[in-house]
Amino acid sequence: MQRNIQEIIAQMTLEEKAGMCSGLDFWHLKGVERLGVPSVMVTDGPHGLRKQKQGADHLGLFDSVPATCFPSAAGLACSWDRDLIGQVGVALGEECQAEDVAVLLGPGVNIKRSPLCGRNFEYFSEDPFLSSEMAASHINGVQSQGVGTSLKHFAVNNQENRRMSVDAVVDDRTLREIYLASFEGAVKKAQPWTVMCSYNRVNGTYASENEYLLTDILKEEWGHEGFVVSDWGAVDERHHALAAGLELEMPASNGVGERKVIEAVKSGKLSEEALDRAVARLLNIIFKAVDNNKENASYDQDAHHRLARVVASESMVLLKNENGILPLNKNGKIAVIGAFAQKTRYQGGGSSHIVPTRLDNSLEEITKLAGDSAQVVYAEGYDLENDAIDETLLQEAKRAASEAQVAVVFAGLPDRYESEGYDREHLHLPENHTRLIEAVAEAQSNIVVVLLNGSPVEMPWLGKVKAVLEGYLGGQAVGGAIADLLFGEANPSGKLAETFPVKLSDNPSYLNFPGEGDRVEYREGLYVGYRYYDAKQLQPLFPFGYGLSYTTFEYTGITIGKNEMKDTDTVEVHVSIKNSGSKAGKEIVQLYVRDIQSTLGRPDKELKGFAKVELQPGEEKSISFTLDKRSFAYYNVELKDWHVETGDFAILIGKSSQDIVLQETIHVQSTVPVKKTYTRNSTLGDLLSDPESAAKVGALLQQFQESSPLAAMADDDHGDMVAAMMKFMPLRALAAFSQGALTDEKLNELLAEINS
Amino acid sequence: MQRNIQEIIAQMTLEEKAGMCSGLDFWHLKGVERLGVPSVMVTDGPHGLRKQKQGADHLGLFDSVPATCFPSAAGLACSWDRDLIGQVGVALGEECQAEDVAVLLGPGVNIKRSPLCGRNFEYFSEDPFLSSEMAASHINGVQSQGVGTSLKHFAVNNQENRRMSVDAVVDDRTLREIYLASFEGAVKKAQPWTVMCSYNRVNGTYASENEYLLTDILKEEWGHEGFVVSDWGAVDERHHALAAGLELEMPASNGVGERKVIEAVKSGKLSEEALDRAVARLLNIIFKAVDNNKENASYDQDAHHRLARVVASESMVLLKNENGILPLNKNGKIAVIGAFAQKTRYQGGGSSHIVPTRLDNSLEEITKLAGDSAQVVYAEGYDLENDAIDETLLQEAKRAASEAQVAVVFAGLPDRYESEGYDREHLHLPENHTRLIEAVAEAQSNIVVVLLNGSPVEMPWLGKVKAVLEGYLGGQAVGGAIADLLFGEANPSGKLAETFPVKLSDNPSYLNFPGEGDRVEYREGLYVGYRYYDAKQLQPLFPFGYGLSYTTFEYTGITIGKNEMKDTDTVEVHVSIKNSGSKAGKEIVQLYVRDIQSTLGRPDKELKGFAKVELQPGEEKSISFTLDKRSFAYYNVELKDWHVETGDFAILIGKSSQDIVLQETIHVQSTVPVKKTYTRNSTLGDLLSDPESAAKVGALLQQFQESSPLAAMADDDHGDMVAAMMKFMPLRALAAFSQGALTDEKLNELLAEINS
Repeated sequence: MQRNIQEIIAQMTLEEKAGMCSGLDFWHLKGVERLGVPSVMVTDGPHGLRKQKQGADHLGLFDSVPATCFPSAAGLACSWDRDLIGQVGVALGEECQAEDVAVLLGPGVNIKRSPLCGRNFEYFSEDPFLSSEMAASHINGVQSQGVGTSLKHFAVNNQENRRMSVDAVVDDRTLREIYLASFEGAVKKAQPWTVMCSYNRVNGTYASENEYLLTDILKEEWGHEGFVVSDWGAVDERHHALAAGLELEMPASNGVGERKVIEAVKSGKLSEEALDRAVARLLNIIFKAVDNNKENASYDQDAHHRLARVVASESMVLLKNENGILPLNKNGKIAVIGAFAQKTRYQGGGSSHIVPTRLDNSLEEITKLAGDSAQVVYAEGYDLENDAIDETLLQEAKRAASEAQVAVVFAGLPDRYESEGYDREHLHLPENHTRLIEAVAEAQSNIVVVLLNGSPVEMPWLGKVKAVLEGYLGGQAVGGAIADLLFGEANPSGKLAETFPVKLSDNPSYLNFPGEGDRVEYREGLYVGYRYYDAKQLQPLFPFGYGLSYTTFEYTGITIGKNEMKDTDTVEVHVSIKNSGSKAGKEIVQLYVRDIQSTLGRPDKELKGFAKVELQPGEEKSISFTLDKRSFAYYNVELKDWHVETGDFAILIGKSSQDIVLQETIHVQSTVPVKKTYTRNSTLGDLLSDPESAAKVGALLQQFQESSPLAAMADDDHGDMVAAMMKFMPLRALAAFSQGALTDEKLNELLAEINS
Repeated sequence: MQRNIQEIIAQMTLEEKAGMCSGLDFWHLKGVERLGVPSVMVTDGPHGLRKQKQGADHLGLFDSVPATCFPSAAGLACSWDRDLIGQVGVALGEECQAEDVAVLLGPGVNIKRSPLCGRNFEYFSEDPFLSSEMAASHINGVQSQGVGTSLKHFAVNNQENRRMSVDAVVDDRTLREIYLASFEGAVKKAQPWTVMCSYNRVNGTYASENEYLLTDILKEEWGHEGFVVSDWGAVDERHHALAAGLELEMPASNGVGERKVIEAVKSGKLSEEALDRAVARLLNIIFKAVDNNKENASYDQDAHHRLARVVASESMVLLKNENGILPLNKNGKIAVIGAFAQKTRYQGGGSSHIVPTRLDNSLEEITKLAGDSAQVVYAEGYDLENDAIDETLLQEAKRAASEAQVAVVFAGLPDRYESEGYDREHLHLPENHTRLIEAVAEAQSNIVVVLLNGSPVEMPWLGKVKAVLEGYLGGQAVGGAIADLLFGEANPSGKLAETFPVKLSDNPSYLNFPGEGDRVEYREGLYVGYRYYDAKQLQPLFPFGYGLSYTTFEYTGITIGKNEMKDTDTVEVHVSIKNSGSKAGKEIVQLYVRDIQSTLGRPDKELKGFAKVELQPGEEKSISFTLDKRSFAYYNVELKDWHVETGDFAILIGKSSQDIVLQETIHVQSTVPVKKTYTRNSTLGDLLSDPESAAKVGALLQQFQESSPLAAMADDDHGDMVAAMMKFMPLRALAAFSQGALTDEKLNELLAEINS
């Protein structure tokens, strides 16, 4: 329906406009009934709907309406499957329509800076490209159903520790290339109806009051058309936040926020135009929700559960499979060990915690799939409620394992280990889980470990087991998906969206996480995740992009559309890949770009493309990637823009970040001139390496070489040293060593000429 | 002689005063003849005198008067021997007197941030405590002879790359605890007559113009009484430098510096009082030199050479000695291999490069000591002038090795690999040295490698050799010292003053060295050297403080004077140590302190005491250390002072930084109250953990718990999360979630009360 938004705003009182910029209650926006503006509802996500029943507590952890619980983002991202995540989004949108929810509060694209972050299970990846691609698919899926999303938590919210007060200090290049890039792609590709600002400060200013982030970058540079909503309770001073570009404060602030905005407008500190612009953005989205609302909508719970099972199986990562112990044979005795087999952890704690429509029991699903010719026995192994080692349970488990052909041990992180609200302090499994694996290893050499956790764990026991299936938090169909993968009904096709370190202290943020007091410095800079392990030549336990399959894939060729290009062009890369095994399967092909030589620090390689391809045994396909300027660029803080340094770049095709199998080189030519200004403190080396200034400084150098004893030494034994000294010598020092031949006046004349 | 400095200054013209603040020529200060102020000479050091002959080039690398070349600082520090370094200082002072030199330009105490720094051989250590102790002994030794020193390069000059223009960006705590601490101890303990400012910028300002460094810290806080001299050519704008606290510009600037100072005074930009203060400092030192000048002084070249030999043997570090292959037997055939055996590298390139009074030949010294019952054969192995592998030389070396009982291979870094002026780009030995070791290993299993290098190298061949003697740059008696150690005439007693990494990328500065353009960020912060390897649990090739002996030492007990102390007290630590082997030897006992629990990041342990103790076989001695506030303190940037956080500290006694053998605990109580100020953004957790504010915030919390549904959740399954959320919640958010019960007005009243 066509409406004149400006006309509606013109009819609003100042109080009504200010009122709209704060919530009605915990979950609703304010409407203005007399002008036909309805109150719409937003509700938690992102991997399922958490719509609270009336009267329930506001964080609503127990009493929300049932909804399909899909795998959380940490697992979803391991599918690397844009289409599949789009399907999840569609399903979520359908459920929102059925529950009359206008905006689903997700997805979250914060970068996994540290594996300790308590909320990592809600985030996609350590890599901004993968993260933003996954998010864009999620958003497009949900919004295709006429339901909005809220891309969160904008920005640099990478820990729970002191999340509401901490100041994340990050240099601008890192901010752009890592932390914002994860949002940027999603905003540009999918236009989420809303973006949610985070609790923390960014370089000194609360995200909720950060004009640089909310207005300069998000609205103006990236062109975000929707509105920004605060994380619940993230607003410090409402009028400052509004001026910075935060349209909606949530939840209701009992009139406090409105009052501050009204006072600011009346006193002239805030322009009414700014308020009007905010209201316009709110109305646009509210009416979009209204216009797209489907009356009497419903959804197919069974179908969504089936989808959840497929998604879960595509999200799990087979980390180890010695002697092809997996898939399991459907005969003999199979010992399933560990309480997680009965009560499999399938989601994380906090605002994303939902009530599922149903819930698989892994043991039952395994038993069902094993069929009649196999016998499945179960031992509890540990108490889920605490970490204490229970010797009786251990002995039971050992006995069960010793009497079976294979032991499938379920281990991982219980709810109390990871949650919104607090971070982990280590990467250990509970002591009783670790001890269980070791005990079973004393009785049985065929061990398959199934891990349920939202973020990496250390695996000191890895050498004692034959297989590890990383299940992440697989949603309500987790049990069926595990059974499918264990028996080969599904072929594992997930790859890690984050690095698994050998030990916590290997992580790049280790010495600067979670910071000191209310300040956390991102001193590792660009070197997050695989960028760090690559640069430091530090072997992770499992690298980014890694995952096994029950079949094998052969990469048979790479071609690129051109060997040289301008940074205004694009280039096509074609890769041929073949299923060389005997099972149908899916491979995730990864494209990384390396700047072969750079005048500034760059990661060894960065992910710039990926594709998931399904192949029957013997089948071969060609897939293509398109690379553009951004694929080769870094963020130049002086230009305040993305910039490509002219030179050769390697295009690397990998099975993982550490398993590069094909490679080509392309020369990229920058079309952006970078003008340098020289000063008396510019070095001779810099002046001579720039053709324009070199010519002008030549005469000076000649004069110097004739007059200074320093220059005369360049030919003898100390030539290397003298050459280096000359190269690093500022012009003004050259003057000082020139025995009076070069005066300040002459120097200034020369500089004026060079800079002209 | 007593003089009235102020009276002399009062008689000086502005031109004379300004003139004194720049040099007369390359090596002399200006005098004022009519007022009896002589021109005195300064000259390069630090491990020998580099006094140029008249007419020689100014960097004077070839034509200085002969002087004793002692081991360079990198080796000296490995002796950990204050007395011995004091003796070196005395000898240097004697040589300065003999040559009529007023000030020796050294020692250098810059921290070894990266092993790549081309000038590391001139610096002591990666640890500021060891570095400043070594420097203080050096300075006290030289100055005991009435000759001044110049503690350099002040400050944060840790690379040669772009050294004259680079801006070293370092946080204040790291600056104080690491980079300045290395100077601070030496200034306070030894009052060097002069301090030399470095070329680089520190946090944006040239060291030569850095008032914070030169005046606030050096003169006012540390009480330096002498003057500051620029590194040669380090002055940008002379008048700014003078205002900042740089008294002397070197070398002469052909009147430019004087003119700028005069103009600044005349225009009122610089006060004449500031100039007078600078001249007073200059005159004080000039007259001190004059008064201490010894006419017709001379020194005993033989005695100094003998001292150089002892010092060299104490400075070398035995890194490996499998099966006690060392000391060598004086019989059978010994193959000495590698051109370095004939032309042993003994000093580094640049301003410290001196002409020795004589020079040992290692091969000759080995042959001499081996005596008649042994046969020493020699093979060149590689060409010293380049890196190319010479197959003929390799075959010769293999043959010599195969026919002998043992092969002693000389390898290391040629002059072209490390020098003042440029940094290394890798840690490799020349290819022909590495290949020589590998080739010899094919022919002989008894291999001793003698390394000559100023800074660590990678040792991929380590597993193929039985012994490694790190010789560093051992000065003119290097050959004799190596022979003494190889045959056991001297017992190795050096320990590493720096970490040897397995590979370059392990180094903490690796991702931020040498920076980008003219900016290098010290992002590793405090975690330099062993502080990083400890914190990251990263195994080095050889740790800080490590070194072997031909005897064994047993640490038999530790006692501390008290178990609790105030930070205003001191405590004595006694350690008993015994020579449990059969040879006389010296052990370096190291004391580290660990803050067991801290609210901010601190290194795992820090060196706070050391002693070198000589023990006959079976002999036992007790040594004592005194610890004070500084031993437990960190630099608190808010207090702008050193501060001890009340709590338990471990006192660790180690044979090296990684071999802690004794341990005690002490409780240290701070006497400094730290007043906190709370704001609306202070967290509830912080307020509750502070007894004073906790009482006042109690009522508020009670109210909140009664009114907010959030608080009500704390008892259920999500208790951990809610507790964390509450702890991290700022007061203003508590207000937002209080349903209107807590207004901004009430909040402000509460804060006023808490902060009162």
